[in-house]
Amino acid sequence: MTGNSMFNHCKIVDCTIRDGGLVNNWDFSVEFVQDLYESLNASGVEYMEIGYKNSPKLLKSEGKEGPWRFLDDEFLRKVIKEKKRTKLSALVDVGRVDEVDVLNRSESMLDLIRVATYARDTEKAIELGTLFHNRGYETTINIMALSNVMDNELNESLAMINDSPIDVVYIVDSFGSLDPDDMRYLVEKFRRALKNKRLGVHTHNNMQLAFANTLVAAQMGVELLDASVYGMGRAAGNTNTELLLAKMTRPEYNLRPVLGMIEKHMIKLREKEEWGYLIPDMITGTLDEHPRSAMGWRASEKRDLFTEFYDKMTTPEIFSK
Amino acid sequence: MTGNSMFNHCKIVDCTIRDGGLVNNWDFSVEFVQDLYESLNASGVEYMEIGYKNSPKLLKSEGKEGPWRFLDDEFLRKVIKEKKRTKLSALVDVGRVDEVDVLNRSESMLDLIRVATYARDTEKAIELGTLFHNRGYETTINIMALSNVMDNELNESLAMINDSPIDVVYIVDSFGSLDPDDMRYLVEKFRRALKNKRLGVHTHNNMQLAFANTLVAAQMGVELLDASVYGMGRAAGNTNTELLLAKMTRPEYNLRPVLGMIEKHMIKLREKEEWGYLIPDMITGTLDEHPRSAMGWRASEKRDLFTEFYDKMTTPEIFSK
Repeated sequence: MTGNSMFNHCKIVDCTIRDGGLVNNWDFSVEFVQDLYESLNASGVEYMEIGYKNSPKLLKSEGKEGPWRFLDDEFLRKVIKEKKRTKLSALVDVGRVDEVDVLNRSESMLDLIRVATYARDTEKAIELGTLFHNRGYETTINIMALSNVMDNELNESLAMINDSPIDVVYIVDSFGSLDPDDMRYLVEKFRRALKNKRLGVHTHNNMQLAFANTLVAAQMGVELLDASVYGMGRAAGNTNTELLLAKMTRPEYNLRPVLGMIEKHMIKLREKEEWGYLIPDMITGTLDEHPRSAMGWRASEKRDLFTEFYDKMTTPEIFSK
Repeated sequence: MTGNSMFNHCKIVDCTIRDGGLVNNWDFSVEFVQDLYESLNASGVEYMEIGYKNSPKLLKSEGKEGPWRFLDDEFLRKVIKEKKRTKLSALVDVGRVDEVDVLNRSESMLDLIRVATYARDTEKAIELGTLFHNRGYETTINIMALSNVMDNELNESLAMINDSPIDVVYIVDSFGSLDPDDMRYLVEKFRRALKNKRLGVHTHNNMQLAFANTLVAAQMGVELLDASVYGMGRAAGNTNTELLLAKMTRPEYNLRPVLGMIEKHMIKLREKEEWGYLIPDMITGTLDEHPRSAMGWRASEKRDLFTEFYDKMTTPEIFSK
């Protein structure tokens, strides 16, 4: 209820364009992205993740996705004409980046590059992250699908990262299946294994626990908190940027500009695109499954037939991971 | 993520008709209520709160509200033709009940009568609850708006209730302004002050913390957990019944029938009526204010002008509590 100083170490990383792009195929107008940047900056949000920095040479392009799918520095300079307090971030996937596309930070609009990886690809992620580090960027490694990794494999990954130059390691609840106790367990585990690292957290809202899980992590000292304006992100979406701003009542934060962004853009967008608490996503979250089956179901004619979806998902011989 | 035995002491009280009635003026068809009863019963939900048992003699009727606003035993017998495992509950407000309307439990469809009160009316609530107790009902007192009560007043209320025959005392987050730490604090406080009582919890979802707060309370031993199917309740709504069923994976619980209820009735209803996470309700939750101003705003032409609402709510001379 009360705001307080327990969040003074935290920084918000707004993922509206990057994770929200998974909802609308990155079909955000330049005006939308500019308005978002201005509102995040005025609200005091520290980072804006403006898209993916994968290479179209290494990731099949459908030819229909917006420019935030394959960020280009020249284009970015036209969009963000004046860099203000809010830093810019991009996400890359292991194996999808052409290193010749990545300028030195001194020549780039980007400040932070985050490498998303499955635990099994940790070595490649470190290699890639180290490259960015050497080019001057702040770097993170975001280990996805933690709820589906065996402990021995995860321990090995964390040990490797601890000895790398990567700045921040993320706890990612890809399936929205974690509860606050799970989060507490993972933060403790990461803290023990990563004595040299700062931590970050990325949540999904399948069980309506994204914000609560983020608060737990923040209270335990996790620094980088991912969020999206109005929760816009794949399937059930992310922790809401506006909730973090409302909760972490620091002098430098201001809820109002992000409310203006919601008012101007997000309500209309939500009428056209679908994200947030939806029953199929709740079901996959509960079952600790990737949301792709729920998203497929929502895109089909059977979108509102929840019991049929539940039956399929709980019959082992029909759907499997 | 995992279900477990830490919830074995819990019982779900589904408030869809009663709290949801605040959304649609109790305009639920008999078929809707019958389907809800059957689905809750098949899902293993222990209580269904089927409405208010206030008297139209003591609470101005608009003449337009559905029958669940002023429950009548004869009518109820026609609706619920066969009582099954799921018990029936009704809520009353202090000062709104005519005791001649309340049969002995042996002659009534109701099992549980809950008295909603502000802390200042605790004595009246105890008097009323004691009357129901003496007529054979299970009883609760639900202290509303806890976030707006001074501690000395609350302590006095709890001491009085502890010496009464009331079975259960509720922690009610009327404004949806509590976070998990607040809930932890209140449960500890209630536990200390109410050594002879069982506890219950009723949450609202303004900050998307209803489910997380309910889990915290449940893990600390709170027994009665209020919820609504698809979260239907006043303004931001309540903890979702389907989330509790999904989380508390006890052998006697079954998520599927409630999913069927959502599929058959709730999606259509949500298109017609509004509840759930909405920015004005988030703002009142953040500010620890009654949601009535948010509900009024949503009913006006300015419904989507969030910054204007925020400015009004944060300018002390315009709105006050």
